[in-house]
Amino acid sequence: MVETFEQISPADFFYRNRDIAGFTNPTRAIFSSVRELVENALDASDLHGVPPEVYLRISQEDNGGEEGEVYILRVEDNGSGIPARHIPSAFGQVLFGSKYKLRQARGTFGLGGTMAILYGQITTHKPVYVASSTGTSRTYEYKLMIDIQRNRPIILDRKAHVNKTRWHGTVVEFRLEGDYFRAMPKILEYLKQTAVVTPYANITFVDPKGRLYRFNRVTTDMPPPPEETFPHPYGVDVETIQRLTKITDCRNMLDFMQKHFQRVSERIAHGFLENAGIGKKKNPKKLKPQEVVRLVRKMKEFKDFLPPRARCLSPLGKDLLKAGILKELKPDFIAVCRRKPSAYSGHPFIVETAIAYGGDIPKAGDIVVHRFANRIPLLYDEASDVTVRVIKSINWRTYKVSPDMPIAILVHLCSTKVPYKTVGKEFIADRPEVRREILNGIREVARRLRRFLTRKEHVERERRRLSVFSKYLPKIAEFSTELAGKKQPPDIEKLLKSVRRFE
Amino acid sequence: MVETFEQISPADFFYRNRDIAGFTNPTRAIFSSVRELVENALDASDLHGVPPEVYLRISQEDNGGEEGEVYILRVEDNGSGIPARHIPSAFGQVLFGSKYKLRQARGTFGLGGTMAILYGQITTHKPVYVASSTGTSRTYEYKLMIDIQRNRPIILDRKAHVNKTRWHGTVVEFRLEGDYFRAMPKILEYLKQTAVVTPYANITFVDPKGRLYRFNRVTTDMPPPPEETFPHPYGVDVETIQRLTKITDCRNMLDFMQKHFQRVSERIAHGFLENAGIGKKKNPKKLKPQEVVRLVRKMKEFKDFLPPRARCLSPLGKDLLKAGILKELKPDFIAVCRRKPSAYSGHPFIVETAIAYGGDIPKAGDIVVHRFANRIPLLYDEASDVTVRVIKSINWRTYKVSPDMPIAILVHLCSTKVPYKTVGKEFIADRPEVRREILNGIREVARRLRRFLTRKEHVERERRRLSVFSKYLPKIAEFSTELAGKKQPPDIEKLLKSVRRFE
Repeated sequence: MVETFEQISPADFFYRNRDIAGFTNPTRAIFSSVRELVENALDASDLHGVPPEVYLRISQEDNGGEEGEVYILRVEDNGSGIPARHIPSAFGQVLFGSKYKLRQARGTFGLGGTMAILYGQITTHKPVYVASSTGTSRTYEYKLMIDIQRNRPIILDRKAHVNKTRWHGTVVEFRLEGDYFRAMPKILEYLKQTAVVTPYANITFVDPKGRLYRFNRVTTDMPPPPEETFPHPYGVDVETIQRLTKITDCRNMLDFMQKHFQRVSERIAHGFLENAGIGKKKNPKKLKPQEVVRLVRKMKEFKDFLPPRARCLSPLGKDLLKAGILKELKPDFIAVCRRKPSAYSGHPFIVETAIAYGGDIPKAGDIVVHRFANRIPLLYDEASDVTVRVIKSINWRTYKVSPDMPIAILVHLCSTKVPYKTVGKEFIADRPEVRREILNGIREVARRLRRFLTRKEHVERERRRLSVFSKYLPKIAEFSTELAGKKQPPDIEKLLKSVRRFE
Repeated sequence: MVETFEQISPADFFYRNRDIAGFTNPTRAIFSSVRELVENALDASDLHGVPPEVYLRISQEDNGGEEGEVYILRVEDNGSGIPARHIPSAFGQVLFGSKYKLRQARGTFGLGGTMAILYGQITTHKPVYVASSTGTSRTYEYKLMIDIQRNRPIILDRKAHVNKTRWHGTVVEFRLEGDYFRAMPKILEYLKQTAVVTPYANITFVDPKGRLYRFNRVTTDMPPPPEETFPHPYGVDVETIQRLTKITDCRNMLDFMQKHFQRVSERIAHGFLENAGIGKKKNPKKLKPQEVVRLVRKMKEFKDFLPPRARCLSPLGKDLLKAGILKELKPDFIAVCRRKPSAYSGHPFIVETAIAYGGDIPKAGDIVVHRFANRIPLLYDEASDVTVRVIKSINWRTYKVSPDMPIAILVHLCSTKVPYKTVGKEFIADRPEVRREILNGIREVARRLRRFLTRKEHVERERRRLSVFSKYLPKIAEFSTELAGKKQPPDIEKLLKSVRRFE
């Protein structure tokens, strides 16, 4: 028996293993498609400082009495647009994109959008329609399909139009088989939670029955866009160094260290190279394999590097987080916390937490948990997620919280590299550094909730005490008046006021 | 702000996202490397009907006082070997392999082996050494590295030797940074569980301290190797049909249906094409896009297709499963069950279950669960796995099982497509069809355990009853003898025998 060997393209790989990218069945597929396209739309606006206007429409295809649920998915945004020459690859090729950078973005795999279109193609055999402009004098329209075996776009049609209004943005429309009505609760929950962490966005959704859902912005303040950054010495491996030495124009290691890594000053570079036993004047292109290995190892061990810089991160900030929660959950009480930047294996991250009580929050019999990573709501595989594990590990009675209270906890993790455990971005791995920050963040807001609940309890107790007085004092007064043989009972209000402890 | 776009290679993609392939940290990395290489070794023997001889050695690199834990990992097998021209790509390229087929194999992603080598390269900057022969007159040796950015092997050295003994097999050796001593428990557990489901294999492991672990075969009977199969009509999509119409030499749909799909007879093909409203004489190469879509849809709806064939599956069978468990767990009681073939979305699968009691099984305070998929032990992310969820959903008191009993449950899922949720093959998704089979399989063996426990209880009760008699009868006899004024007490043994209910 002879084995036959073959190479498959990455598109073919993800086509065969689409479960791992979140395209398991018709329900998950339509959810994942919505999610990937909405995230691309928001990224396109966010990274360019434009308050997003996202329009999503799902309509049912009239397929002349044929069976099967085919939907038309359309997403429009007012983002930066895609240069014409990149449109075919951006939508017709996997592992092609603009997101392979060290900065925070929703998308990171360069996979999701194309996977959605690929799923549409293998279920309906129809092309995708894309229109885009970067705000130049032209808009471009494409009709594309994907050559899965070769991971190449097939251009079926291409048109250029005059762009009088200098519109910029992208429109994507394609057909896919799906089960919208099963996916509906998750899609609506996804949009609602997206509105919570993107309070500066207008999101419009028209569902297959023509119903309109509007998630309006409450502010046009946007968090400052993340900057692109250099790798931190703690997070590099041999391959990173190899690639850097290939492209560098530095002639010596002292310059090399300062130019290609974040937070390495001349002083630190001196100290480090001495410690590592690598010559400061050594040409980086002439490092021997063994020296590269030592360099990496010493980078991980050296104690005097500054912690990673957080400018490549773009947390929401307390005000925006609060605004988002108030808008969507209308709670009676809210506490938010933004932790200081931290890092795991050289990747900077920031945790933001919030706790909300009462209002529109349901009494679910358990704490409602909203998980976010780089402004993406995570809705699946909750039990495996680090946030849920942390919440379960807390003794909530310490914070006067009982399971029947209407409480919601939000945790938002921002990082240049979110430690997702799946390509479908369903849940976050349990890294000790991340776990610690989440735990401390939740504890902080939980303490503030405890103060609120304690005060609430006092007020409640007082109300009850007073209600006893106001019930019996009139009787006592009446009775006493009678006993004393007087006509007029004394003024109860004065008496009540005297027992009131505080207003 | 202008976005820069780029295409990355699949090797680069998995390098950047190695967490999702199971290479999260030095502990996981060494575990995953062992696992991937051992699985490739077993696959190479299994698919060729040779009882496997696998030799695994992990030794510590003497790196002259440098810090960091570098290990040398060596795996040897007696499998089919790899043809010389494919060696560089098989070890120096991701998504290249012989496993993209419809049949059961341990590996399925064509990724694991190369990922292990890639991890070794990015942590130690050293090449991999490979020697292999398919049993011809030559063996070939290679020294390779991976060009990650281009997903191409770099051949550093290549040698051919005369193969007098006609040896066939493969030897792989490479260096990687790892944390062996943290990974050790999982590695030993992995090898032990592998021995349970591969009782026809000899596995030898030499650890970094030079300790020898032997897992000896107890049989040379091997399960029949799985056959390659055609897709089942329930499991196809538009892309599959497109690819088939490209390569087919059938001139009409009636032949096309019979030739390229499993379990489609002429009668069924007739019935189906009529039902689908597609001409039997139609040339498959001339199907219009709309017809391809209809064909796929009708295939999913048509009720008269036979269930998928299980010949592409290779379950262990009751005897081998029993032998494996007896060998490694030495229990007092064992029950095994092999369910009939079933299918989810056109992918055939078989579930095998076993329950064992007593012997070497620890009283863990909870049921010990061993999960297997295509003869791979799954050791991580237990809580998310369908098997563990099923076991938790069962009311074990019905089966007279209490948490303090020494009980182990084994579940083995065989399929041409195991619904893994991660590329790291950590756990299996909760598909209703799979869940049902696992539940029924566990119930069946649990019922047999209940009979055993009931009988054990009877025997125990009887023993206690008899011990009461044998304690007091002599006293009573003595006392009665005295009372009766006799000298000799009656024969107790006879009396005891008369009250004994069964031997």
